[in-house]
Amino acid sequence: MQNFESKLGTRVVFGKGKENEVGKYVAEHSNKVLIHYGGDYLKEYGILDRLTQSLEENSIDYIILDSVVPNPRLSLVKKGISICREQDIDFILAVGGGSAIDSSKAIALGVKYDKDVWDFYTGKAEPKEALKVGVVLTIPGSGSEMSESSIITNEEENLKYGIDTELIVPEFAILNPEMCYTIPPYLLSCGIADTLTHLFERYFTPTKNVVITDYLIEGAMKALLEIGPKLKKEPTNYDYCAEFMWIATIAHNGSMDVGRVSDWASHRIEHEISALYDITHGAGMAIVYPAWMKYVKNQDIDRFSQLATRVFGVIHSSKEEASHIGIQKVEEFFRALGLKTTLTEADVPIDKFEIMAKKAVGEAGFIGKFKKLYPKDIIEILNIAK
Amino acid sequence: MQNFESKLGTRVVFGKGKENEVGKYVAEHSNKVLIHYGGDYLKEYGILDRLTQSLEENSIDYIILDSVVPNPRLSLVKKGISICREQDIDFILAVGGGSAIDSSKAIALGVKYDKDVWDFYTGKAEPKEALKVGVVLTIPGSGSEMSESSIITNEEENLKYGIDTELIVPEFAILNPEMCYTIPPYLLSCGIADTLTHLFERYFTPTKNVVITDYLIEGAMKALLEIGPKLKKEPTNYDYCAEFMWIATIAHNGSMDVGRVSDWASHRIEHEISALYDITHGAGMAIVYPAWMKYVKNQDIDRFSQLATRVFGVIHSSKEEASHIGIQKVEEFFRALGLKTTLTEADVPIDKFEIMAKKAVGEAGFIGKFKKLYPKDIIEILNIAK
Repeated sequence: MQNFESKLGTRVVFGKGKENEVGKYVAEHSNKVLIHYGGDYLKEYGILDRLTQSLEENSIDYIILDSVVPNPRLSLVKKGISICREQDIDFILAVGGGSAIDSSKAIALGVKYDKDVWDFYTGKAEPKEALKVGVVLTIPGSGSEMSESSIITNEEENLKYGIDTELIVPEFAILNPEMCYTIPPYLLSCGIADTLTHLFERYFTPTKNVVITDYLIEGAMKALLEIGPKLKKEPTNYDYCAEFMWIATIAHNGSMDVGRVSDWASHRIEHEISALYDITHGAGMAIVYPAWMKYVKNQDIDRFSQLATRVFGVIHSSKEEASHIGIQKVEEFFRALGLKTTLTEADVPIDKFEIMAKKAVGEAGFIGKFKKLYPKDIIEILNIAK
Repeated sequence: MQNFESKLGTRVVFGKGKENEVGKYVAEHSNKVLIHYGGDYLKEYGILDRLTQSLEENSIDYIILDSVVPNPRLSLVKKGISICREQDIDFILAVGGGSAIDSSKAIALGVKYDKDVWDFYTGKAEPKEALKVGVVLTIPGSGSEMSESSIITNEEENLKYGIDTELIVPEFAILNPEMCYTIPPYLLSCGIADTLTHLFERYFTPTKNVVITDYLIEGAMKALLEIGPKLKKEPTNYDYCAEFMWIATIAHNGSMDVGRVSDWASHRIEHEISALYDITHGAGMAIVYPAWMKYVKNQDIDRFSQLATRVFGVIHSSKEEASHIGIQKVEEFFRALGLKTTLTEADVPIDKFEIMAKKAVGEAGFIGKFKKLYPKDIIEILNIAK
């Protein structure tokens, strides 16, 4: 196990109707906030009204900035930064899923920086401070509600980059499983797929002697494989929603990757696809991950075989065969969710692999920790994913 | 899953030699601290010198209060409170295992309360504030380094009571696995046993629909069952020490019992044994837990059978048989650690069961959430443990 430093500083408030108490949790930090969200369903279902009512009851002023879209845009982030500065706002309340949260985190970073917030995403500058962020989660999957990550799309340059900093770990996250009831079936599938790949990214590590985290990740995977299909059948079953919401949060809150290196190459590859073709991230991951697995499995056949036997219950004569069947099971799981597992099926053009591969590796020239991938490897993986 | 609110606010600093940086972490909170510890080995091995050197380098004043003993005493807590008040100290640095940490937490609570700190432990008063506590962990097992619990022995009245409050969750915990190298073999076994029972207490829940936490607890158990015996054989193997240290921490930091009720009856019963006979807590748990399991297993045979099959790999014809064999495996695990599993073997007198049972239930009249236990039940369990 490697050295690590970790603090899970987010107060999780989990349960039925908890969003109605949002004012109480905001009041500990601020009396003037930016409410930042996307989907119109928040208005439609009265969720926004309930939030603003709770804020008003706690004498908290608010300004609303809506219009967040999947693969959240830098232009909207900049608009949010301007509003916060003009209105002297010191707290961002994100309402939604990963897009609203990541956009809120970007605003929080930008307000405290007098140059271009994009500098943090390209690695040109390191953030020193940020506004505080709180979350009312309505779409699980991204795990952003407890994470130190924010991923933003620079739509002018077709770039999708992320940053990790403890400064943007949310102060609180309100998780009401009932919020899942109204998630469109396709987005629910994408969230489940995204969550599984968050666990995979951590599972595929070059770090040795990580017995405890292996077992924890495997446990979370098994829970997701058990609950995911049940939730798809009964999307308004509170217990299934609760299980999924919590799995999605812990899959990405840092508790599963202490003392070990994670891979993240597949996420980088998918970001290039969604930056160019604007597909939902989880749907992209269902395509990229199996292809990545097929390409890299001989890097550590023991680990692939361990996944297959411990998580998917594969019993087979050789590690090679077990690994092969394990990857098939992953594809079957995605397909059972109604997702595509090839680019062609998903109507993603297949003529820009070289551009994507080059952009994915950036200045470093490679991606991935489990196996280093250079542009030629990425092109191979995209070819497998065709 | 039940509603919950959770915040894991402790900064974990994990790795080789990290105790040498203690001053940096203290400096974020205070410039005058009480160093509180027990065992002479801390001086002997030069650990204390390294800590004070780091404090000095960070211009932090300190007063030392040693003499913490297992089942830490109220009288020493009161001495600590007086010192902090006289010396205007606002931070306690606990160095050691559960005893030093719990004693430090009690001091932290007492300094900010103008009556008897014992009031918090008897439930007569609720704490409103506390000094901050930091931890340098040298003996894993108690899990107190990230927990909200403190358990203190009132030696005059032969009472051992605990309190849970977020106020005493440590600000930081420095975990250097190398510290395990010098733990006496018996105490190491006690720590492993204690950790397993922390997982059991959470596993045996009346709460339904806790698939994800079940899998996480089972994962932690499997890791402990795998690593524990290896560590006993090679107590200076860094990787085994690291795995055990981390399992012990997460077993008790609240991450495994979100949304579910835990039992804790066995801990209450053991506290009565160690309050009277001053045996090490983990050794007491190895005696009480199997007896408790035998007595309560029919309360939820599915759960006992699930433990047996998923964690101990028991394959058997009926749930009753699987449960029976599972409990045998638990006893075997404790015995393989060199621990006793009956009171008689451990030279604990068996003539005060009625007194212990009555004291264990306190004013509530019963203990336990998985199964309510009244004094007559506790006496039965103690008889099984004879």
